[in-house]
Amino acid sequence: MSNSSIPAAYSPPDRLLLGPGPSNAAPSVLQAMQQPLVGHLDPTFIDMMEEIKSMLRHVFQTENEMTLPVSATGSAGMEACFVNLLEPGDKVLIGVNGVFGTRMCDVAERCGATVTKVEAEWGTIIEPSAIAAALEGCKPKLVAIVHAETSTGALTPVEELSRLTHDAGALFLLDTVTSLGGCPVAVDDWHVDAVYSGSQKCLSCPPGLAPVSFSPRAMEVITGRKARVQSWYLDMNFLASYWGSERVYHHTAPISMNYALHEALRLVLEEGLEARWARHRKVHEALKVGLTKLGLSITSQKGHQLWQLNAIGVPDGADEAGVRTRLLSDYGIEVGPGLGPMKGKIWRVGLMGHNATVANVEHFLDALGQCLE
Amino acid sequence: MSNSSIPAAYSPPDRLLLGPGPSNAAPSVLQAMQQPLVGHLDPTFIDMMEEIKSMLRHVFQTENEMTLPVSATGSAGMEACFVNLLEPGDKVLIGVNGVFGTRMCDVAERCGATVTKVEAEWGTIIEPSAIAAALEGCKPKLVAIVHAETSTGALTPVEELSRLTHDAGALFLLDTVTSLGGCPVAVDDWHVDAVYSGSQKCLSCPPGLAPVSFSPRAMEVITGRKARVQSWYLDMNFLASYWGSERVYHHTAPISMNYALHEALRLVLEEGLEARWARHRKVHEALKVGLTKLGLSITSQKGHQLWQLNAIGVPDGADEAGVRTRLLSDYGIEVGPGLGPMKGKIWRVGLMGHNATVANVEHFLDALGQCLE
Repeated sequence: MSNSSIPAAYSPPDRLLLGPGPSNAAPSVLQAMQQPLVGHLDPTFIDMMEEIKSMLRHVFQTENEMTLPVSATGSAGMEACFVNLLEPGDKVLIGVNGVFGTRMCDVAERCGATVTKVEAEWGTIIEPSAIAAALEGCKPKLVAIVHAETSTGALTPVEELSRLTHDAGALFLLDTVTSLGGCPVAVDDWHVDAVYSGSQKCLSCPPGLAPVSFSPRAMEVITGRKARVQSWYLDMNFLASYWGSERVYHHTAPISMNYALHEALRLVLEEGLEARWARHRKVHEALKVGLTKLGLSITSQKGHQLWQLNAIGVPDGADEAGVRTRLLSDYGIEVGPGLGPMKGKIWRVGLMGHNATVANVEHFLDALGQCLE
Repeated sequence: MSNSSIPAAYSPPDRLLLGPGPSNAAPSVLQAMQQPLVGHLDPTFIDMMEEIKSMLRHVFQTENEMTLPVSATGSAGMEACFVNLLEPGDKVLIGVNGVFGTRMCDVAERCGATVTKVEAEWGTIIEPSAIAAALEGCKPKLVAIVHAETSTGALTPVEELSRLTHDAGALFLLDTVTSLGGCPVAVDDWHVDAVYSGSQKCLSCPPGLAPVSFSPRAMEVITGRKARVQSWYLDMNFLASYWGSERVYHHTAPISMNYALHEALRLVLEEGLEARWARHRKVHEALKVGLTKLGLSITSQKGHQLWQLNAIGVPDGADEAGVRTRLLSDYGIEVGPGLGPMKGKIWRVGLMGHNATVANVEHFLDALGQCLE
């Protein structure tokens, strides 16, 4: 390339990220990433890995030894759970009420599993009665549920689903990509066997890591597999050796991303989980009040609306995409569009982690009001 | 967690990373990561993605449209190549002369492929005659070679291997994790069909991204597959839609890591490929001269020694691990141990990217000399 064709340094615009993720990271999280690199087996880095594991256990509310960040984004966390737990021919029951349940089916089928779907209308939750009925018809190894459906803003209560799953002798897998850090996630109390999340939602760390946790029962299934895990990169048997006491080299951990996650988790713990959940609830309530004044409302099922991701119904006559474009260009605010059957019908407004403030809600409502005038 | 048990902020020690990677990143690359986040579909981010693709094409010396960074570390780049190109029952021929050829076999077997190994002593190259002989015995779909074996410091010339592969009607896959940016890699001139690398070696970007490139012929094989790609996360059909003109949401790209890669590639281009290769060669030669004065030498095959990764023979009576520990604790210098059959026999000294300077060589030789006194 000639010098004249070398791109200029990239300087991102200021954005208030109120979409489905990433959320903005706190300044100290961004600063953590610019610290000098160390090796992935450096003694100080290994100490920091232990702190990350310990903080993740606290945030997941679990004592699972096997709790660590997978070195890729949240979708790889989903894949890590399925490829480790499933072998060809296994049966799996999946709740589908949005994009991420749909994605789970695709991932599970690629593992050679037979998938039974329990579908619910997008925007509603997966009901225990539907799971109970489906469990009578099949004897799955695994039941998988999306806790917080980022595509619709519905929060499915999972305690009863987990109980039904275990009564049927299956493992319970939970997607907490959008819930973790924004509302209660109690892995041990809810008897969740495998769980994954993403760094870039309510933890407010940049995207690039997928926290996962596996129960001892899930690890027994993984270590007792007949077939090798189809993904070398995501094989928990290897990851257990690198993140465990043996420290066997597997892959080169993303050093800077782990710096960021360490700092982001520290901020979560300093605030306290209860206080953080309360903050997310408060801004959600503030948003609802403001939306009502604008004649707008949240479309997901009443009583099961996510605090951190709000599906706002697009009013008749409004230009759904035009409003998003104007929010971004005139106000620097990113919100998300609807996906699949919700396309054109909702805006998805995330109030996650660092961004979950009443000031952001007010700024957004002002901007939205002007865009709708 | 009580406040007293929340870990302190992590502050990494100053390290000169002369191991097998990561190498130290330039200050502007670290600074790029602390810039505010934008969304993965932000118009300015999409423009930056195009610049990354364009700069990667230049560094890989290819016009392949399908050239992009996979959102995970180098090992996931390896997996991305195999899972996309192989289907169950396919035959693959793999050159094995170190850890990474061995890993390729594991990854390919997990795809359900039948693997034929062409083995060479660790530290030596894969000879064309060995590949030619093996091609007579099997009719593989794919031949896979490690260009620069990070575990041994040997650089296998690949033009002749590629010619033999294509004469046999197979695709040619090349691991350039350690070679890219440190010595010539000419994807189009060498007719490489699939290639992967890592961000953290001679590109001197933090670990977390895996640049890959696929020839049109490889993409034909991928789009014409009978079975779905077993990894949803690494499915190039999806990645082509996100990184291509459609911009279909697949996963949330690691925003900050892409900031870093953009800046790291800019630095490579500003220096120029030829100048960068010459710099790596120069520091390698300086290291060799200095090692001779210490009575030490490089153990990999003469005439095929990597510039950027040097396998130094541990002299009789020296405490291999003790020297590494002292280099780290007293001098802040990280070097790597031998792996597998090389364990205890070599130190692996990387002079990669930002770290490939004569000053670093002199500093290292001084420190090593004192550790060996």
